[in-house]
Amino acid sequence: MPKEFFTVGALLYKDYDLLDVNGSLRMLGSLKANFNIITITQTGEHVTSFTPQIANYINYNFENCPDFDILFIPGGVGTRDELENSVFLDFIKQRVPKVKYVLTVCTGSGLLAKTGLLDGKKATTNKLVWNWMTSFGPNVEWVRKARWVVDGKFYTSSGVSAGMDMVLGFISDIYGKEEADKVALEAEYQWHDDPHWDPFADKLPGTVDLSTIPS
Amino acid sequence: MPKEFFTVGALLYKDYDLLDVNGSLRMLGSLKANFNIITITQTGEHVTSFTPQIANYINYNFENCPDFDILFIPGGVGTRDELENSVFLDFIKQRVPKVKYVLTVCTGSGLLAKTGLLDGKKATTNKLVWNWMTSFGPNVEWVRKARWVVDGKFYTSSGVSAGMDMVLGFISDIYGKEEADKVALEAEYQWHDDPHWDPFADKLPGTVDLSTIPS
Repeated sequence: MPKEFFTVGALLYKDYDLLDVNGSLRMLGSLKANFNIITITQTGEHVTSFTPQIANYINYNFENCPDFDILFIPGGVGTRDELENSVFLDFIKQRVPKVKYVLTVCTGSGLLAKTGLLDGKKATTNKLVWNWMTSFGPNVEWVRKARWVVDGKFYTSSGVSAGMDMVLGFISDIYGKEEADKVALEAEYQWHDDPHWDPFADKLPGTVDLSTIPS
Repeated sequence: MPKEFFTVGALLYKDYDLLDVNGSLRMLGSLKANFNIITITQTGEHVTSFTPQIANYINYNFENCPDFDILFIPGGVGTRDELENSVFLDFIKQRVPKVKYVLTVCTGSGLLAKTGLLDGKKATTNKLVWNWMTSFGPNVEWVRKARWVVDGKFYTSSGVSAGMDMVLGFISDIYGKEEADKVALEAEYQWHDDPHWDPFADKLPGTVDLSTIPS
């Protein structure tokens, strides 16, 4: 395995999806010698996820956050508020040009799309709220049937659990398929290693509006 | 859906597995009207998971923790230390008789087994470290090929990602299959809804000793 080492900056916000964050980061962090992960919120305080009362411990705020190599943006019901939060979107805009990779899960793709930085790129997002979400990136080449999509330094995934498959795909691209298979096997996880595998594109009509889901 | 409401006490410890905890709790917490979840460590301080520097926010310590209905015990590399921690094992012993259900993921089953409270019960655990782990419960009826096992109030699962399947099984048992299917679908998660599905029992020989894995 190459010795390439990355610091990952995970950008959290109120009502983020707990599995988006911790499923993906757990797979990345399995290669302990290759990744350090820091958590960031706007104020540096912890924010509760959409799972009642559960939160991740937070390391940095937008002011004191150091440079990192990979920007990680999860999705979640809270996306609907951050789409209107210019401070949050500005943080993404400032950091994207400085990082080697951007990984977004679920509706995190919509937050990135809203900044305009995905314009002209291929990407995917959550299938339940597809229509609403993709409306924030009218110039993005949205790929509806995909577990995850890679375009240059941008990795975007479908909803929630797709983040784990995408991150295993990222590990495979950087360190080789054997490493990704090993991480999945030792987590007793059935990795969907084909980025075109996506039964949910057919099962979910994509017509739910996230702003209608109760807090 | 019945209106049965549960408070879940999630028992964390240093080097717990991040997905064991947050994958399972995310599935449970999808039924927001039915679950509240509290996090507990021995001292009430947060502890880092085995994923570099990532931690959950903690609500209670062993002294000030209120009653709860479901005891949730995750696995992780840190199990090896807690197996020798009598204060930790005593907390489990005191709480198990008071709760309606006990849910353990991965090597969390070994922690429960070490207390003797699984004696004579059917249970399963992680397949990578099977031999080492089951040695802590010589009087447990260990079921090697199983995604999860139910015996009375005890739900035990195989390694890491199996926790999500088990919790969906628990939701199905309490609230009906339709509810569990909906949670899985909206998380774009391919639920393995057959508790006998377990390809990892054959793929992993079970001969790894957790105490040999570097910190």
